Amino acid sequence: MTLSHVRIVGSGLIGTSIGLGLALKGVGVTMVDSDGRAQSLARDLVKSSPSADIDLTIFATPLGAVKSLLDGEFSANPHSAFIDIGSVKSKVKVEVSTSSMPLNRFLPTHPMAGREMGGAESARADLFQGRAWIVDSQGVDSDVIARASELIEFLGAHKVDLDSSEHDKAVALISHLPQLVSSLLAKQLDGGEAGWLELAGAGLRDTTRIAASDAKLWREIITANSQAIKPLLEKLQSDVGALIGSLDDESSVAQVIEEGQRGRARIPGKHGGKAREYTYLPIVIEDKPGQLAALFDECATAGVNVEDLSIEHSPGQFTGLITLALSQMDAEKLGDHLKAHGWSVHSPRR
Amino acid sequence: MTLSHVRIVGSGLIGTSIGLGLALKGVGVTMVDSDGRAQSLARDLVKSSPSADIDLTIFATPLGAVKSLLDGEFSANPHSAFIDIGSVKSKVKVEVSTSSMPLNRFLPTHPMAGREMGGAESARADLFQGRAWIVDSQGVDSDVIARASELIEFLGAHKVDLDSSEHDKAVALISHLPQLVSSLLAKQLDGGEAGWLELAGAGLRDTTRIAASDAKLWREIITANSQAIKPLLEKLQSDVGALIGSLDDESSVAQVIEEGQRGRARIPGKHGGKAREYTYLPIVIEDKPGQLAALFDECATAGVNVEDLSIEHSPGQFTGLITLALSQMDAEKLGDHLKAHGWSVHSPRR
Repeated sequence: MTLSHVRIVGSGLIGTSIGLGLALKGVGVTMVDSDGRAQSLARDLVKSSPSADIDLTIFATPLGAVKSLLDGEFSANPHSAFIDIGSVKSKVKVEVSTSSMPLNRFLPTHPMAGREMGGAESARADLFQGRAWIVDSQGVDSDVIARASELIEFLGAHKVDLDSSEHDKAVALISHLPQLVSSLLAKQLDGGEAGWLELAGAGLRDTTRIAASDAKLWREIITANSQAIKPLLEKLQSDVGALIGSLDDESSVAQVIEEGQRGRARIPGKHGGKAREYTYLPIVIEDKPGQLAALFDECATAGVNVEDLSIEHSPGQFTGLITLALSQMDAEKLGDHLKAHGWSVHSPRR
Repeated sequence: MTLSHVRIVGSGLIGTSIGLGLALKGVGVTMVDSDGRAQSLARDLVKSSPSADIDLTIFATPLGAVKSLLDGEFSANPHSAFIDIGSVKSKVKVEVSTSSMPLNRFLPTHPMAGREMGGAESARADLFQGRAWIVDSQGVDSDVIARASELIEFLGAHKVDLDSSEHDKAVALISHLPQLVSSLLAKQLDGGEAGWLELAGAGLRDTTRIAASDAKLWREIITANSQAIKPLLEKLQSDVGALIGSLDDESSVAQVIEEGQRGRARIPGKHGGKAREYTYLPIVIEDKPGQLAALFDECATAGVNVEDLSIEHSPGQFTGLITLALSQMDAEKLGDHLKAHGWSVHSPRR
């Protein structure tokens, strides 16, 4: 079969990203959200349209909202297949089993993709490219699995079948523990003087990036998976204690760093998110209004397409650093163009 | 004065990056390292040359190596100024005070730059661009400070004067604690199945990136600054314990995430220090060249100052989303202006 129309309940980051990806494949999409502002933005982005004939309904809401939607969505589209995208899987299976939704029509799934910024604003069609998309297909009708598999393929992800309870243990380690550790680390910054934080480098930024994540989403995830998370936190607590007791001993400290190196090395390089292959072109600009407009005028003149960009600017500095992400060809073209027009362009890096 | 020849003792990441940056500015550089291979690579990269007349000697070695070099370097070039680049500052001052090097000829410094990859191979001339470079100038001769200041300026960094003991407290919080937390988190991955780690996303990768750092360097840094680090780890340990006790309580978990958000928000963005509150204006644009330029032309026409921006756009997607960070007043002004000119502007969020 081929998906013709998908209903996405929840217009946040995941729901809207799914919508964008499906729209690209020519699949009709209906975006729904209880929040009017989110729904309006998502509908505009995705070019949402209504349909009476829904192949697949996706619950793309926070964890806690699924339970109350099951009965209504099933009775509205009884011939649809149903999936969720929640970060914890054991709990939703229990919720479905106590609803009017038949367990064989509902496939628990979890796309291993996300960003620290939520909302339709942060959505992107390629969010799932190259990512694993976990499903627990035990006892689920084959047509439901087929529709979900097509969705996953359309979005460039790959399906991984995993029992829900093993899934919950896995994400406790690779997702929930890092989230809590990042939040706890960032919390400690409250004790520092503002001047100290101006000295922060990439290490602090990276380790605390996901500490900016949404508290409403995460409180649900953590409590829903507390059983799997607790022993991990207890092990961490004991390791912190041991380190405190041996801070003055070089070989003990070296051992902690080396154990961390070994753990880090276990993360595979190539199976996670497919790195977008951009070339990064650094341009030093003066920090004054109009400079960005002038720079993008040059981009338009040169006929290049800017894929992404970042602005870096440090306290007390009169200049800012703009890094443009471009295709390699465009980076070369733009670099030459900008240099010829007197811009301070630096060597691109891949 | 202008630096004419600098001697760099230590040909690792920092020393070689300094050498590359100085060479770009036409300053003569002598690279030295006790390791022949590192010295040879660095000399080749930097186009190192000998000189009998050294203005500035830089100790760019691991922390523990400085002490044994002080007497020899001072007697070899008694008219030179001296600086180090170590990550801990109180200890080196004590070491200088017990050497033949006069305290007023030695400026303790610390460039706030680095990478998780060490060695001359990873060196880059722009490593210090836009970064803070801490100095403790109390009691140091003005000609020594002037030479170091010129170095810092040549490398595109900006000088921050900070007392050594305050420096050590600051880096314990913003650098050493994140390093240890990242290592301890990565260490926990040893308990996970290989299949689980294949599901790892960007969050785990970012939080454990610096866990790949060099154990030899870090064991010295941590033990040299253990006094400042210890209370931070104790606070963390107690926070982990409190979280373990309240994992099933949504409001307690939400509080931890929110405290993390607040800590994370203290890290300055574009304009350091002033923790500015921006309003974020989402605009859906067509994905084609010239759209960004047209948008920034509108910003210039409306007379608003864009503080930051992000582009969400995936290859092949029909629409792109630009989110502009502005003052609240500018966001309202620009929103009205863009709507009046037919742009697809959505409601701003704070």
